[in-house]
Amino acid sequence: MSTATASLPAQQHAHAAPFLEQLRAILGASHVLTGDDAAGYLTDQHRRLTGRALAVARPADTAQVAQVVRLCREHRVPIVPQGGNTGLAGAATPDGSGQALLLSLARLNRVRAIDTDNDTITVEAGSVLAHVQQAARDAGRLFPLSLGSEGSCTIGGNLGTNAGGTQVLRYGNARELTLGLEVVTAEGEVWESLSGLRKDNTGYALRDLYIGSEGTLGIITAATLRLYPLPAVQHTALLAFGCIRDAIAFLSQARTGFGAGLTAFELLSDTALGLIAQHVPEQPIALKELKYPWYALIELSDSESEAHARERFEAVVSSAFEDGLVADAAIAESLQQSQALWRLRDEALGEAQRRDGRNVKHDISVPISRIPDFLRATAAALEARFPGVRPVAFGHLGDGNLHYNVSHPVGQTPSAVFAVEDAIHEVVYDSVQLHGGSISAEHGIGQTKRDLLPRYKSPVALGLMQRIKQALDPLGLLNPDKVLQHPLRWKDFP
Amino acid sequence: MSTATASLPAQQHAHAAPFLEQLRAILGASHVLTGDDAAGYLTDQHRRLTGRALAVARPADTAQVAQVVRLCREHRVPIVPQGGNTGLAGAATPDGSGQALLLSLARLNRVRAIDTDNDTITVEAGSVLAHVQQAARDAGRLFPLSLGSEGSCTIGGNLGTNAGGTQVLRYGNARELTLGLEVVTAEGEVWESLSGLRKDNTGYALRDLYIGSEGTLGIITAATLRLYPLPAVQHTALLAFGCIRDAIAFLSQARTGFGAGLTAFELLSDTALGLIAQHVPEQPIALKELKYPWYALIELSDSESEAHARERFEAVVSSAFEDGLVADAAIAESLQQSQALWRLRDEALGEAQRRDGRNVKHDISVPISRIPDFLRATAAALEARFPGVRPVAFGHLGDGNLHYNVSHPVGQTPSAVFAVEDAIHEVVYDSVQLHGGSISAEHGIGQTKRDLLPRYKSPVALGLMQRIKQALDPLGLLNPDKVLQHPLRWKDFP
Repeated sequence: MSTATASLPAQQHAHAAPFLEQLRAILGASHVLTGDDAAGYLTDQHRRLTGRALAVARPADTAQVAQVVRLCREHRVPIVPQGGNTGLAGAATPDGSGQALLLSLARLNRVRAIDTDNDTITVEAGSVLAHVQQAARDAGRLFPLSLGSEGSCTIGGNLGTNAGGTQVLRYGNARELTLGLEVVTAEGEVWESLSGLRKDNTGYALRDLYIGSEGTLGIITAATLRLYPLPAVQHTALLAFGCIRDAIAFLSQARTGFGAGLTAFELLSDTALGLIAQHVPEQPIALKELKYPWYALIELSDSESEAHARERFEAVVSSAFEDGLVADAAIAESLQQSQALWRLRDEALGEAQRRDGRNVKHDISVPISRIPDFLRATAAALEARFPGVRPVAFGHLGDGNLHYNVSHPVGQTPSAVFAVEDAIHEVVYDSVQLHGGSISAEHGIGQTKRDLLPRYKSPVALGLMQRIKQALDPLGLLNPDKVLQHPLRWKDFP
Repeated sequence: MSTATASLPAQQHAHAAPFLEQLRAILGASHVLTGDDAAGYLTDQHRRLTGRALAVARPADTAQVAQVVRLCREHRVPIVPQGGNTGLAGAATPDGSGQALLLSLARLNRVRAIDTDNDTITVEAGSVLAHVQQAARDAGRLFPLSLGSEGSCTIGGNLGTNAGGTQVLRYGNARELTLGLEVVTAEGEVWESLSGLRKDNTGYALRDLYIGSEGTLGIITAATLRLYPLPAVQHTALLAFGCIRDAIAFLSQARTGFGAGLTAFELLSDTALGLIAQHVPEQPIALKELKYPWYALIELSDSESEAHARERFEAVVSSAFEDGLVADAAIAESLQQSQALWRLRDEALGEAQRRDGRNVKHDISVPISRIPDFLRATAAALEARFPGVRPVAFGHLGDGNLHYNVSHPVGQTPSAVFAVEDAIHEVVYDSVQLHGGSISAEHGIGQTKRDLLPRYKSPVALGLMQRIKQALDPLGLLNPDKVLQHPLRWKDFP
């Protein structure tokens, strides 16, 4: 993790002057940023990582991206692609050497096409997710990718990290929402495959390989994405469960009873809701008595009517209530109440954790069936080693994806956990591995989890990944040192 | 296309004797087949392709597969993996050299685990698709992959070709149904990743890369697959449309009105139904008057009840009827009627084409919005060049996937089209390309479409594929000469 301050160390790079001159010739001087103009691109949004760069390049279109890549190749300048700079694993922040070019895709932000018969939208990589959602809505369609940073994250970043979010249960991750890509390769060639086909078995899954590769195999410049019908109505409720096994049993019943209408199943622990009750009392939901250990915010998307959604909701929830699976239920009676429930999950929870003091965060997944054992074993292991620390668990139960945060003991400060941050990570990730899980469910590896990967991923998988990296980026210029611990060193090439 | 007869040309291979001896030591002599015992594995199911092989190896488990691959590597023996031998592009048939080992995965046919809380099933590659469907059903779940050869095709072959079928509209291709894989690499190592995680962003999409690679990058030995709730009831109807644009507009309305309940939308042309009326009069649906040019078999899967399914069906279809989109409708009133409608599509249509005489087949996709133009342009181009030939179009409209077959002119014999087969392919595939489509929607490339690929796929894509092939199979021993036109030559290595 680099702690160097943002600045332009052009003098450190022998070829910087002619390189920058040619870069300005391609992009225009106003789209090559250095010094203070570049600073905002060189620190991640959580201000935990800061890097340096030769410059920030802001190409206008795919042809300029390809030109820039060819120039970088010629000068052996590594490239760090960046979208909305909202990543949570540091993939879009350069290292401290100042030798890389930060390539911002932000100006590639056009909607190229919407095809309502084919239910597809083709957008450029720098398009902000919320704008794509809106463009779909304007055409009477749903683009279902939805996550906290949707107001500033971009499609390119979403695809680079294979973003998840709250609707994965029904619609899948970013990868499953993508039909076609346009990619600039390490050679500066353009692979154009924006066809919008739902079936195309003419060779290897290049699309799926680029998605989730965090800019290390190629630079995604545009994508053709799946659209869905807008649901007629959505129905939301906060349910309480006496134990995590009941929540999982109800998830199964809800999947059967609602079919694909079940579009969200967001788990919240009593500790998580308790932090909101304590620190964000101004939110509109009464959370005084938290009698149960687990809660879930569930959403039913209905293609028929308000009446039908309500009837289905009551049928499935009542039946689970009678079975003793659901202990209590608060069903939203209006759009306002629905939005208030979602704000609990989307805003109040984050705010409560901030006011309580920063905590040590984990974005993990385990098979849904192993969540009860994982939760019990991890809490016990943490308590044994760091008495009093408070696990704050919440997440996408339907995807087996938990955001498992660890807060300081009551009466202490956040430094109590950050002083032992690496040891806490190890306890949590070792437990994840023991329960057949993943140490990064939806945030990617970037630089912050890169050095952990060899502990938790098989040598065979890492070896295959290294070979693919070498095959598609033989000079190692694309986002070097991200994802893989021992990437090819661009410095080794003449 | 090889026409050599099936036999054991051991004498052609200098190292065959010690190789076979060691192979028998690994597998036991009874699982190394030669001569007549091997013949059934060396001809494809449609008896259009026949190859030769050193032997057929039938390993019992993953460890034996790995041992066999290491032995083949040592002896530089190429490997052709095979599942149920039902492929339609010749990927599982060896060439005529007799130098490869045919590796049958058929004995790896166990269900390793079913996890109903996680909604996953873990099965070995040789498991027959219908058995996996049944195992899921026995556990109260749906494994939705469904295709004509499900009684004999295997999961390994389904994944090798990224199989599609009739439920893709709702559930996706084989790739989208897969969470984890176990793969034997070209080095004979085992990459075990059967975790059943719905979210795992720890590196490159190796899973998706192996799926659809037709055995050229690694040998899939097991998979963890997604399960879904069984629908409470399914409702089927045959609808008639005055033009293809009406069918597409209704597809859009049905997606909105049924939501994810729309699980099939199978298009049939009047020509296709006419062949059934003419050649398969014994089927139970009356098809005397075909007044409309297009028909569709649609299926609604409902999570509630028979009454609700019927009510929804009538609401959506009546509204389309009033809009003039649907010209006529025959709604199944019983399970028997539903099954009879499906038999039209699944059995009678194939039988009718066989009785009419074999035709020249294409498995293509185009964006749904371009299907009307594609159909008009292709029919016109065929008529101009081959007057009187009859396009028999049907397929998965919701996926943009058509099986576009070309039958001989009335009064002639099938030889009229087979004499100009390559020219017909060229007309159809050129039109596919012009309309932004794919020359293989769900059957793969194998050997039969390999030489066409460079005409229809970009050099950039082919170059990337070659590099991936070289990275993951540097000796070129895995299913050589399949998919890629100029694969690495295993013969070039000492």
